[in-house]
This record gives sequence, structure tokens and C-alpha cells, in this order.
Amino acid sequence: MKTVSENACFGGVQGVYTHASNATSTDMTFGLFLPEEAQDGPVPVLWYLSGLTCTHENAMVKAGAQCWAAEHGLALVFPDTSPRGDGVADDDAYDLGQGAGFYVNATQEPWAKHFKMWDYVTDELPKLIDANFAIDPERQSIMGHSMGGHGALTMAMGLPGHFRSVSAFAPICNPTVSDWGRKQLTAYLGEQENAWEPHDATLLMQKAGFDGPILIDTGTNDQFGDLLKTESLATAIAMRRQQATIRLQPGYDHSYFFVSTFMEEHVAFHADALYA
Amino acid sequence: MKTVSENACFGGVQGVYTHASNATSTDMTFGLFLPEEAQDGPVPVLWYLSGLTCTHENAMVKAGAQCWAAEHGLALVFPDTSPRGDGVADDDAYDLGQGAGFYVNATQEPWAKHFKMWDYVTDELPKLIDANFAIDPERQSIMGHSMGGHGALTMAMGLPGHFRSVSAFAPICNPTVSDWGRKQLTAYLGEQENAWEPHDATLLMQKAGFDGPILIDTGTNDQFGDLLKTESLATAIAMRRQQATIRLQPGYDHSYFFVSTFMEEHVAFHADALYA
Repeated sequence: MKTVSENACFGGVQGVYTHASNATSTDMTFGLFLPEEAQDGPVPVLWYLSGLTCTHENAMVKAGAQCWAAEHGLALVFPDTSPRGDGVADDDAYDLGQGAGFYVNATQEPWAKHFKMWDYVTDELPKLIDANFAIDPERQSIMGHSMGGHGALTMAMGLPGHFRSVSAFAPICNPTVSDWGRKQLTAYLGEQENAWEPHDATLLMQKAGFDGPILIDTGTNDQFGDLLKTESLATAIAMRRQQATIRLQPGYDHSYFFVSTFMEEHVAFHADALYA
Repeated sequence: MKTVSENACFGGVQGVYTHASNATSTDMTFGLFLPEEAQDGPVPVLWYLSGLTCTHENAMVKAGAQCWAAEHGLALVFPDTSPRGDGVADDDAYDLGQGAGFYVNATQEPWAKHFKMWDYVTDELPKLIDANFAIDPERQSIMGHSMGGHGALTMAMGLPGHFRSVSAFAPICNPTVSDWGRKQLTAYLGEQENAWEPHDATLLMQKAGFDGPILIDTGTNDQFGDLLKTESLATAIAMRRQQATIRLQPGYDHSYFFVSTFMEEHVAFHADALYA
């Protein structure tokens, strides 16, 4: 693992690191914020999964999360959204290939060799961070934005006991019936739709739900609102009587101005679960 | 004036606008955050001047200022750092020409035609904002980062009564004796050094000081620390017995991670002066 940069930030350290990934067979870069408390011992971890076109960097510099993580003594992890590099498959579209890994393990060509973001985010990167930094692997929660909200919700429900709480900003809620989903799931996982089911938050909610609290914020002016299918997940949550809060925020869109506005409440929500 | 974008943000609106500038004889772009309170009447204004290489956008997305401006009901203005465009003089160096206006009115060729950032920021843009938005021109304060800290300090001292308070993050404090200053002041204002004096915070402090409070934060690990000449301004402040707080923050560098860490305190500092 190599240190790209470390900057003092809200009493802690915002670092950027690269490492050779076994999961993706590429070098991967991630951001990690450690609060001041990490100098004295392991701290809980809050994962932030980013959306389409993002790298590890966007949320790290634009979401305003470190301020609140510092207040609650939490580490933040900002993974990349896909493998990258000259030898890695890509597509001209912004929503497929590099920058658009959709948090799945691809089984189809030309993606299968490198696009293993599920394994990378849920297994390899947590172990790497646990081995190298003062974090407490027993206390982890996860959040994400858009495609990253999809990743956070599907990982939280797909790995019971792994995350204590999950939240999302404008998540893709039902990708198996959305243009933000069907194209990518077909490309990465093939045309057999039953292989898509572990990667659809609404289907996972119908099947089993989540063993902890859920918080979702989505703007009423989200320019991608029709692609998100918030209503599908809301219905599934109500049907299951799942502990959850879904808020439609008046006037807000899909941008980081929206994400940063509600970040304080999301971090506090996770802190409640992580320190319970 | 044209609206480039408007995003809901912390209960208010983060806008980006362009207009044809008389001062610079170019189109200019700026960011303006209006808090929710602006819907009910004019609000005080806090200016943020950015540093070398920045546009109007960097601080708008990275400094985390809107959160605190919303809390205190303040507008924020994010001007660009220079005129821009194909017909505008430039230099290959990052620290001269486009992105490096140094907040002066250039008198020398090839800069004199467009590089009138002093007039643009202190006169034309304030009038434009007053004419188009619900701001109170009688209540204005100013802050800035690096080259923008230089701009904030020199404008605050050079225009008595115009700003109620001034603050800066890692400001260039004594450009007439620094490599961040002598080159640019020579290029824009010529070799007669007496023309530089209104654009050196230390010299202005020695001559007259500021009729309000000053807050300055600079990191002890600032990679440009030797160029900033913080010690010169600190000495001048002490000699004048000027109301001021200068804090050397342990471990912090020159980045936006540093700026965002102390933004809450800077905005609160200005709110105290603007609501006094």
C-alpha cells in the first residue's frame, strides 16, 4: 500500500492510498479519513459509496462529511467506483465501464476480469484497512449516493450482520426495472435476470429486509427521479414494516449541494447505531 | 446577467451566474449562495476570494462554507480570480495571468486591458449583486484563501468603512518581498515599487491598519509557508496594536482540507461583526 497524500483535516487526517488489488487485478485508490480519536485506539467505520462518473475523490472533497465524522469520532472510507487503467475494459457511455462498476462482481466479457467491485468493497478493502489503520471492524455502517446508494443498500441487505445501519442520498432503488440498471446488470451479469436479484434493493427488501435502521433522502427536484424508483422501495419498506425513514426533500436535486446539506443528519444517524 | 445553474443547498440556493463585465471587458462568472432568509428581505454579505489557479467554483464546492452561512443567514459571493477567455492575455506559469489576477488593476501590457480585478470585486460585482439579489450592501465582510487572503486583507484596509470584518486562510501577507508577489506586481503594475504599496497587507497595516476585527489562520505545515510572510504581518499587527487574532494551526497545510476545517469559526466571526 502506498500513501498518495495525507492532509490534516478537522483534527484528524484525510489520506489517499493506492494498493494492488487481488479482487480487481488492478491498482486501486481510496480515501480514508481518520478522526483524532484514532490516535488512541480503533474507531468505528462509515463507508461512503459514490455514484456514476465519480472516483474516490469527489465525495472526499465535496460532501462535507469529515466535519461530522470528526464530531462523532468515526472513520470514513471513500472507495473508487470501478477499476481503472489502460488495460481495463471501458465503454463510451458515462454509465457503463470505468466509473460505473455498479458494485457487482461481473461475470460477463469483457468485464469479468476486473469488475469485481462487490468483493473489493465488502471483503478486500475492509481487510486492508483493518490491517493498516486503527479501525474497529466490529462497528461498520454504510452510506452512498445514487449508484453508491444502490451499492450501500444492496450490501447492507445482502450481508446480514455486516453493517449496523445504512443510509442513502438519492439511491437507485430498483435497478432491475430502470434504465439505470437493466443495461448495466445485463452487461455485467448477463441476460438471466435471476442473477440480478441480489443487486436490487427493492427485491432484497421484499425478500428479507435489513436488520437495522435505514435512512434515505431524495430531492423532489431530482433530475433523475424517474430512474431512481424511490416509490418501489418505499412500497416494499411499508409492506415489510421495515424500520426506515424515507424523506422527499422539497426543491433538492441530485447534486453534492443536496448531499452536503443532509450529511450532518446521516452521519449522526450512523453514529447512533455505531455507538449503541 | 445569465443564470448558469441554481441548486437547492442548506435551505437556500447556490447559484452560478455570468455577465458582461465593464471592468474586465470580458464575460465573468461568479457563485452566489443565498440563505433561506433572503426570501424575506436583504441579508448581510460575506465575500470569499480564492487563490491561485482557482475559478469561482473551487471554494463553492470544497470549502464547506454554505453550511455555516445558512446557520447565520448570510449570503456568500465567490468571484473568479481573473478574467478569462481566448482573447485575454495569459502566461504559462500557474501564478501569472488567467487564474492569478492578484486582485489589482493592471496598468502594464499585455495585462492592462482586462486584468482589473480590484475594480471588479470592490465596485462592479457588488453593484450587480445589490441590483439583482436580496442583499444588504451596508453589511459586508470579506475573507479569502492564499492569494485571496491577500485580496481580502488589502481590500479591507484599502477601503475603510466598506467591510465590517476581514479574515483569511493562509494569506499572502507581504507580497512586495515574496516570490508570490514581486513577479506579479512587476508584471501587472510595473517596476515602480511605490505603486505596489496599496497591495501589500503588511505595508497597509503599518500605515493605517483596519477599523474592525481581523482573524487569520495559517497551518504550521503549510508547504508555501515561506512565501506567505505571516511573520511580517504579525509583527505589523503587534506594532500597531491592531485588533486581530492570528493562529498558527498545528499540522495543517495549504489545502481546502485546512480551509474547511476552520470555516465554521471564520463564518461565525464575520456573523458577529455583521449582526453587531
